[in-house]
Formats: sequence, structure tokens, C-alpha cells
Amino acid sequence: MEERGISQAVIQRLPRYFRYLGELKDEGVERISSKELSELMKVTASQIRQDLNNFGGFGQQGYGYNVEYLYQEIGKILGLDKTHHFIIIGAGNLGRALGNYINFERRGFIFSGMFDQNLDLVGMEVRGIKVQPMESMERFIKENDIDIAVLTIPKAGAVAVAERLVQNGIKAIWNFAHVDLNVPENIQVENVHLSDSLMKLSYNLNRYMRENE
Amino acid sequence: MEERGISQAVIQRLPRYFRYLGELKDEGVERISSKELSELMKVTASQIRQDLNNFGGFGQQGYGYNVEYLYQEIGKILGLDKTHHFIIIGAGNLGRALGNYINFERRGFIFSGMFDQNLDLVGMEVRGIKVQPMESMERFIKENDIDIAVLTIPKAGAVAVAERLVQNGIKAIWNFAHVDLNVPENIQVENVHLSDSLMKLSYNLNRYMRENE
Repeated sequence: MEERGISQAVIQRLPRYFRYLGELKDEGVERISSKELSELMKVTASQIRQDLNNFGGFGQQGYGYNVEYLYQEIGKILGLDKTHHFIIIGAGNLGRALGNYINFERRGFIFSGMFDQNLDLVGMEVRGIKVQPMESMERFIKENDIDIAVLTIPKAGAVAVAERLVQNGIKAIWNFAHVDLNVPENIQVENVHLSDSLMKLSYNLNRYMRENE
Repeated sequence: MEERGISQAVIQRLPRYFRYLGELKDEGVERISSKELSELMKVTASQIRQDLNNFGGFGQQGYGYNVEYLYQEIGKILGLDKTHHFIIIGAGNLGRALGNYINFERRGFIFSGMFDQNLDLVGMEVRGIKVQPMESMERFIKENDIDIAVLTIPKAGAVAVAERLVQNGIKAIWNFAHVDLNVPENIQVENVHLSDSLMKLSYNLNRYMRENE
């Protein structure tokens, strides 16, 4: 499968295709045209065709897309047929929310460990996983084949913790700390800056209110 | 201030400028050139100039940007000089994490109410706010001048709850439910689809591993 040169914008849209196709599959839909998918997803049919053509395309003229096949193929492209073990650093509410989210397991992401510097939280269980002190982190990563770390700690400590994670073999960081991490280029980082998202909502709300005063 | 025609891509970058400028301000930096800001933020100086020119630009040739002024102006553009009251629907871990995040208050977002259909959670307190049953939601919105609702409930109920929110005067929804809401165009929606973000990370991780095997 040829994947080079695919823009991050396309990659960003793939999970949404995957979500819609999963729902169609669950509803028993076997095939769908790009036009129908376009109406459902509220994007143009031409965008859909273009996006899926990046991967060689899966449609057949006059037949449409095979939902199950397309769902499986996009899942493979996204790497969801592989298993990855992840740890969560930060056992606050956000860390616990993510640890409790069982859908991640269904996608091949196995919640394996949780760490916090707050000793009051150490020993607490989140879905059967005991919170460990930060000192145990390095060893745990090495012994348990951990690929992904989820950072749900305040920004003050996040940059230093990210460096420790990378030194110990973590390959990807899902970063919820409100700071840009400074890690080598071969480390994959996906930022979820919740404040930024709220500010964008605020901007759009205020613009709308000004324009309609 | 002329704002029409500003792309969502630019809007999406504004909170990041705001964050960096806030940090510079806290460090006592009074002015900064687009070149210095570019090195700090790892975007091109020309992008910075272009982005800020959308708002008339705040730089002076040979002087650079006044950090405090630019911080304040971007804050105003983002609507952070206004106060908005928000409620959280869903008192699970994620809802509680957001309710406990005091930085939102510093940006003018006042956490005012919390609702859940699970009666075991009703009465629980999150930062002084008591969780109420869903039946109390409509009246609370009207009596407390609520603009924004944060949806942290499973996707099954989210579309119906969003409709109730809109009927009762909510103008903006910060949606964490893993489903696209179906609301009128004048309602501002900002989606945080955490699974989509994790899948994007998964894609990049797997692609990197394949290319470097």
C-alpha cells in the first residue's frame, strides 16, 4: 500500500470515515455510494472519492463502497489491527477518564500502567490497574513493551517527563498537558490542548453574537 | 476590527499565540520580533506576520511586537474579555476533570452547573457545584443565563440532549461525545473526538515503524 505524501489533513479525516463506516456496519449496511456517504457525513462526494483514492480507492463504479471491506482497510491503515500497550502519566480525573475508556481496548490500545507523583493516589485502582509512583515508570516501560504514553499532568512537569519517556523507549505521546513538548522528530506526538479548543469555541460564539446584535 | 473572511485555520492557531504570549508576559518579556517568536513557536516568521495581519497587525518595523498589547488584543479577538457561563452535562471522570480545571475561570468561562442522569452522582460536588438531575437542566439554563454546554456523555444520548440544549437557548456546545451533533447552523459546536485523535497518533506511529523496520 502506497502511503507516502498523504497530507495530515487526510489522515485527520480517516478516523471520521472509520467511525461512520463502523456505525453503518453495525446497522447492517453492506454497501454505500460516495453520494450517500457524502450526505451522511456532510462532506462533498468528490472529497470522499479524493480522500479514499489516496489509498488506491476501494469503490467500484455503479456499486459503491463495500462497507465492511472499507471499514477493515481504513482500520488497517490507521494501524488498529496492531496491538499497542500504553501507560498514563497522571492519575487525576482526566487520566482516570482515559483509563476507564474501554473503547480504546477494542481498537488495540491496551491500558497497561498508570503513574503519578502524588503518593495519595499511588495504590488507587483504575480498571484493575494500580497507580504506581513515578520512580517505577522507567523500569515498567522497558519490562512491558510500552509504545505509547498518555500525558495528563500539569504543564509544569510535562516537558521533563516527556524527555524521560523518550529516553526509555516510548515512541508516541498523546499529550494533554497544555504545553508543546520538545522531543526528537521520530517521536510521534498528538496534542490535545483543551483550552485551545475552548478558545476556538469562544471566538466563534463571540463573533456570531457580535454579527447578530 | 475587521474579522470577516478569516479562515478557521487561522482561528485555530490564535490560542497557541495567546498561550506563548502569555508565557512571555509572565517571564517579563516586553517585546518580541516575528523572527524570535517564530523560533520559539517553530512556525515561519512569514506565517506569524500573515496570521497577525488578519487583524490589522500589531507589529512595528524594527521594534517587533509589544507582548502585553498583542496578548490583550488576541484575548479580545478570542472573546476572553467577556464572561460566559457554562454547564457540564455528564458527571463522569471527564466531566469532573473539566469542572475542576480552574484555568477556564481565568479565561472568563464560569462553571455554573452540572447535570447527570445517573442518580448515584446527583448531589455529588465538583468544585462547589452540586450535580443535579437532568430534569432540572432546562430551568437552570434559563434562570442562569447559560451560553455554553459541555457534553461529556456517551454518544447514545448526546444527539437528543444537544437538541434539548438548543431548544432552551444554549448557543455553543463543546462536544466530547463521540458523535457528530445535528444542530442548527447558528449554534457553535467544537468537537473534541478523543478516539479520532488517538487513531491519528496510531496512524503516525505505525507508519513510522513500517518505514523504519
